[in-house]
Amino acid sequence: MQKSKFVTVNQDRLWQRLMRLGEVGATPSGGVNRQAMTKVDGKARAMLLRWGMEAGLHASMDPIGNFFLRKEGSNPNKAPILSGSHLDTQPNGGKFDGAFGVLAALEALTVFSENDIHTNASIDLVVWNNEEGCRFKPTTMGSATFTGDMDLNQALATTDVEGICVADALDNFYKQLPEIKPRMLGFPVGGYLEAHIEQGPVLERKHYPVGIVESIQGLRWFTVEVLGQANHAGTTPQRMRRDALTTTVKILDALQAHFRDDDDVVRFTVGRMLISPNAPNTIPERVQFTIDFRHPDTAILEQLGDMVPEVCKKSAGVCEVKVTEATASPPINFNPRIIKILNEITEALGLPQTTLPSGATHDAKWLSRVAPSGMIFVPCKHGISHSEQEEANPSELASGATVLANALLNIAD
Amino acid sequence: MQKSKFVTVNQDRLWQRLMRLGEVGATPSGGVNRQAMTKVDGKARAMLLRWGMEAGLHASMDPIGNFFLRKEGSNPNKAPILSGSHLDTQPNGGKFDGAFGVLAALEALTVFSENDIHTNASIDLVVWNNEEGCRFKPTTMGSATFTGDMDLNQALATTDVEGICVADALDNFYKQLPEIKPRMLGFPVGGYLEAHIEQGPVLERKHYPVGIVESIQGLRWFTVEVLGQANHAGTTPQRMRRDALTTTVKILDALQAHFRDDDDVVRFTVGRMLISPNAPNTIPERVQFTIDFRHPDTAILEQLGDMVPEVCKKSAGVCEVKVTEATASPPINFNPRIIKILNEITEALGLPQTTLPSGATHDAKWLSRVAPSGMIFVPCKHGISHSEQEEANPSELASGATVLANALLNIAD
Repeated sequence: MQKSKFVTVNQDRLWQRLMRLGEVGATPSGGVNRQAMTKVDGKARAMLLRWGMEAGLHASMDPIGNFFLRKEGSNPNKAPILSGSHLDTQPNGGKFDGAFGVLAALEALTVFSENDIHTNASIDLVVWNNEEGCRFKPTTMGSATFTGDMDLNQALATTDVEGICVADALDNFYKQLPEIKPRMLGFPVGGYLEAHIEQGPVLERKHYPVGIVESIQGLRWFTVEVLGQANHAGTTPQRMRRDALTTTVKILDALQAHFRDDDDVVRFTVGRMLISPNAPNTIPERVQFTIDFRHPDTAILEQLGDMVPEVCKKSAGVCEVKVTEATASPPINFNPRIIKILNEITEALGLPQTTLPSGATHDAKWLSRVAPSGMIFVPCKHGISHSEQEEANPSELASGATVLANALLNIAD
Repeated sequence: MQKSKFVTVNQDRLWQRLMRLGEVGATPSGGVNRQAMTKVDGKARAMLLRWGMEAGLHASMDPIGNFFLRKEGSNPNKAPILSGSHLDTQPNGGKFDGAFGVLAALEALTVFSENDIHTNASIDLVVWNNEEGCRFKPTTMGSATFTGDMDLNQALATTDVEGICVADALDNFYKQLPEIKPRMLGFPVGGYLEAHIEQGPVLERKHYPVGIVESIQGLRWFTVEVLGQANHAGTTPQRMRRDALTTTVKILDALQAHFRDDDDVVRFTVGRMLISPNAPNTIPERVQFTIDFRHPDTAILEQLGDMVPEVCKKSAGVCEVKVTEATASPPINFNPRIIKILNEITEALGLPQTTLPSGATHDAKWLSRVAPSGMIFVPCKHGISHSEQEEANPSELASGATVLANALLNIAD
């Protein structure tokens, strides 16, 4: 490939749009609270629609609220290429998670329009509905429903804490996008590309402006329940106690040793713990905690994960320990042809890059089941995401969007 | 002392009254929920008042809601002897904690009336208000206000979670005890005796029906806060984490070692722990936990307690650790003369007994500051209290009440 053949996105426009979109649902501390299907989520889509119409794109929405902005290709028989991400955020989210992938795709299509570039296949910018899964569980609801991995009626019936169901919450989109064209659920897809902030520290530490994602690591979630005996903290001798928290500490020590990994590839996190009765002067009767274990390698996921119940029970002492597996998701490998194209483009553009697995899950996980798919990462400051402190660099964001634009051109032709 | 001179309580009446009182605020699982100054707490007092009037006792109540049933002595110039405990319970409390001490004193005074026994000093059965400190903090509010260790107006202004203050909640007593005589706060006391279930396993394990309490151990409460950095569980390598929970586990290991005691006298409990944000897929940013440390020896309380901040900070690793001392209470030694009297009585009655410290705090702690005081323990099953599973044995309860009755006779003469 020759560099002269490549398009370049408008760094300033991309950054300005990220900042304007970040005002929709902005929090006082500089973050964004734009949960799925709220009024502000609808407002963000209306803003995106205006920008898309300026670039000559055609809008549509499917029954689960996935939103599309199409740049028509010359061959209507070719399956469209999709590219995008999501506009919903965590309650204390940032300006870049999701928004970058959407605006990078918009930037690509805008540059194509400006330069009168036409592709063989159509290209659809896609905003997957409810990626974060905060207001309505689970995560990646829109993309999973699109690919048939989640049932539409089940998704529509899901309720939030106020008892509002997805079917009703979608009204916020219909109200703010009044003349939106309906689109069928789950049509054939020629390919899928998603740009995203890394949400980890690897690219920043290694000074790479771009990373090519080779896989999404697999995940196993466990719930561990430790049952002891509540009693008075002042009167019960240590030897007569069945303290669920003391046992939990022993179990966590054993789990830390079990998941120790000198290569630092294993991801082991105990993020949630509930103690009962949780009173300063009562010996804990019951502790429940979660294990989030991730790894890119199926064999290691199986080997280390299968031993979790045994490791916990060995440290049970005088308590009873119950371990249940809450969820599991195998590793996903992205399409080798897409990875090769992304490699050639970054090399031709002279961009230092590395291939890396994704620690987080993404809509691309589901899309990879129905179409050749790939992802492009850009660094985020200190690897922080799902936080109001989320930050990214304008020139690195533009590099990622430029790689995306050129890869779309390649794949759509 | 000769056994022939001793009175014996009515075991069956004591047990039946404990069971009837346990119906007031009974929970479906066999426990009692009778929180301070609720309607059921008033109902329990009305029941007690009826029984007291049958025994010729005279009722009065002080401004903080401590309730008295007096058996008049022959010498009005002698300060009255007080004996009792409390009628309020934990939300998931049992039938014996507090209730036993009140009904044991009632049983003593009833037996005196039945046998036409008169004492020199008057004897007041006392129900201390709000011993448990569940609905209104702190614990032992009534007795601390009586002895001047808590300010009356501050106590009356204390609010529950609904915003109801103690002054208003006292209406439940005035409504159910309509003709109650008011009594001044904090009058001179000639002596104080309190019977109570042990709330620990020592007496049961050693097969003693009665224990003489020599002290209430001292207590120090600490709050430890561990501050790390929230981040994505899937993407953040272990080496780059500042995981507040992983650090907390290291600190708890170090504290366990610090408080290890082969004699099993040290009481060290971490009963409450709050994790933030407490989400399965987010690295914990902040953990706050409590330390409840008790010991009968002031020197050990100081020595081990003063080192808590250092022990915690040594294991801080990449996190920040803050330690604050929330409360401290020195050990209380009960009056040697009272302990001697209790020893002589149990010996004369042929009751196997032991002296032991109290692990829990009691109203007697405050009374010991203004009058010669002592406590009598009886066993409870498996040492369990503050629980719906709380259980005690009718004959051991009667033994404890008999010791109380004879000690009251001795002191009031």
